[in-house]
Amino acid sequence: MAKKRVCLVVAYDGTNYHGWQVQNNAVTIESELNRCLSELLGENIEVIGASRTDAGVHALGNVAVFDTEARMPAEKISYALNQRLPEDIRIQNSGEVAADWHPRHCRSRKTYEYRIYRGQFPMPVKRLYAHFTYHQLDVEAMRRAAVYLEGEHDFRSFCQTGAQVESTVRTIYEVAVEEQGSDLVIRVCGNGFLYNMVRIIAGTLMEVGQGKRTPESMQAVLAATDRTAAGPTAPANGLMLIKYEFLENSLDSEKTL
Amino acid sequence: MAKKRVCLVVAYDGTNYHGWQVQNNAVTIESELNRCLSELLGENIEVIGASRTDAGVHALGNVAVFDTEARMPAEKISYALNQRLPEDIRIQNSGEVAADWHPRHCRSRKTYEYRIYRGQFPMPVKRLYAHFTYHQLDVEAMRRAAVYLEGEHDFRSFCQTGAQVESTVRTIYEVAVEEQGSDLVIRVCGNGFLYNMVRIIAGTLMEVGQGKRTPESMQAVLAATDRTAAGPTAPANGLMLIKYEFLENSLDSEKTL
Repeated sequence: MAKKRVCLVVAYDGTNYHGWQVQNNAVTIESELNRCLSELLGENIEVIGASRTDAGVHALGNVAVFDTEARMPAEKISYALNQRLPEDIRIQNSGEVAADWHPRHCRSRKTYEYRIYRGQFPMPVKRLYAHFTYHQLDVEAMRRAAVYLEGEHDFRSFCQTGAQVESTVRTIYEVAVEEQGSDLVIRVCGNGFLYNMVRIIAGTLMEVGQGKRTPESMQAVLAATDRTAAGPTAPANGLMLIKYEFLENSLDSEKTL
Repeated sequence: MAKKRVCLVVAYDGTNYHGWQVQNNAVTIESELNRCLSELLGENIEVIGASRTDAGVHALGNVAVFDTEARMPAEKISYALNQRLPEDIRIQNSGEVAADWHPRHCRSRKTYEYRIYRGQFPMPVKRLYAHFTYHQLDVEAMRRAAVYLEGEHDFRSFCQTGAQVESTVRTIYEVAVEEQGSDLVIRVCGNGFLYNMVRIIAGTLMEVGQGKRTPESMQAVLAATDRTAAGPTAPANGLMLIKYEFLENSLDSEKTL
């Protein structure tokens, strides 16, 4: 039978998962997708994910591909797979892509949001999807700091040590700091992200917001190319992968959201 | 020792509770408050709640009072109690009120929101706090229908049968239907609500939005004073008690939010 490559746009609540990537003795987004797809299609399916998000990180539009010989039309797989998946994972779109299309070997724009809830006390209905702080944050200072991160830079200072990557140069198209009522949302759009990069950006910008660092100090943090020059890694629960936009023809996660 | 009456503004995620009210063999918001307050203050404490929300319903600002002989200043109780409560219940404010002040025997304005997520497929990070629908909803028709509910009416058609109340007349100050991106929020503000009233209003307005009822038909639904004239009771997860405003001196839940 003819093989085809199918692309999925995958949304999930990361609260109850040990991240995306398959691990021994832990339930992950990838392991649930593999299990449910293999049951549905009667083949051994192993997906390839675009972004291997950490434990506790959420997604509106991560992307995965897999190859199958099944006859089920690619665009019907979303409906059938959602019947089998746990309710905290839902396919938002499915479709066929070129047999050699790979979501990590493809130019793309990725958008993440880091959400902070500001209050005197934590708000229960926010706790899973926003990082709580009772600190006053100087939003204007955070915005001025954010501007220094835009453009092409060596982001080694914003990369968790131990991560093995060939290059730590990335291009950030935008770092927006937006107030949504009691929430403060840091939206970061770039061509790629290093390990924990958005959470380290959020942790460093929060230190700027608290007056522990100046906005201008971001230049020295970048120039240091040293993880210890940046602020702490902000907690996972505030991070959400919003969308992927691929610059070559493929299923675009944005279209479905 | 001198007794005092303490008022609490209580926020919670109702997902894991069998509603507000104490029940045998079930964990409720009230039972958790009683347990943690009794441990904290070394007395047997039983709170009186303003709104006894159903299983799965959330709150940003419900209100409860209790009497205590403890010396702890009333405004410090919020901090101490939050150390003991589970993370899905958080006191937003605490303070002393008059010894005869009772949250259900006091004129007040209550605001509820019913949140609907509109999409092709459910969105996992929305599932606990919004009702999902893939139906197209005519928002303008829902707004025209909502206007008929404003004012003083006999809302017996919007009261779950079996509820025992002396009068089913209530005043609704506003029914707003607001689009927030993919979410549709029905905000209802009134001087009091019958059992399941906001959820029946939401279920009926959704039928208007789907074209199953006309906006004008709301007049006949009200006039029928019969539960079967209205639409279905919308699911609990979409409902959130936003705030209480008391018209006599007391702790106002709005001030803290």
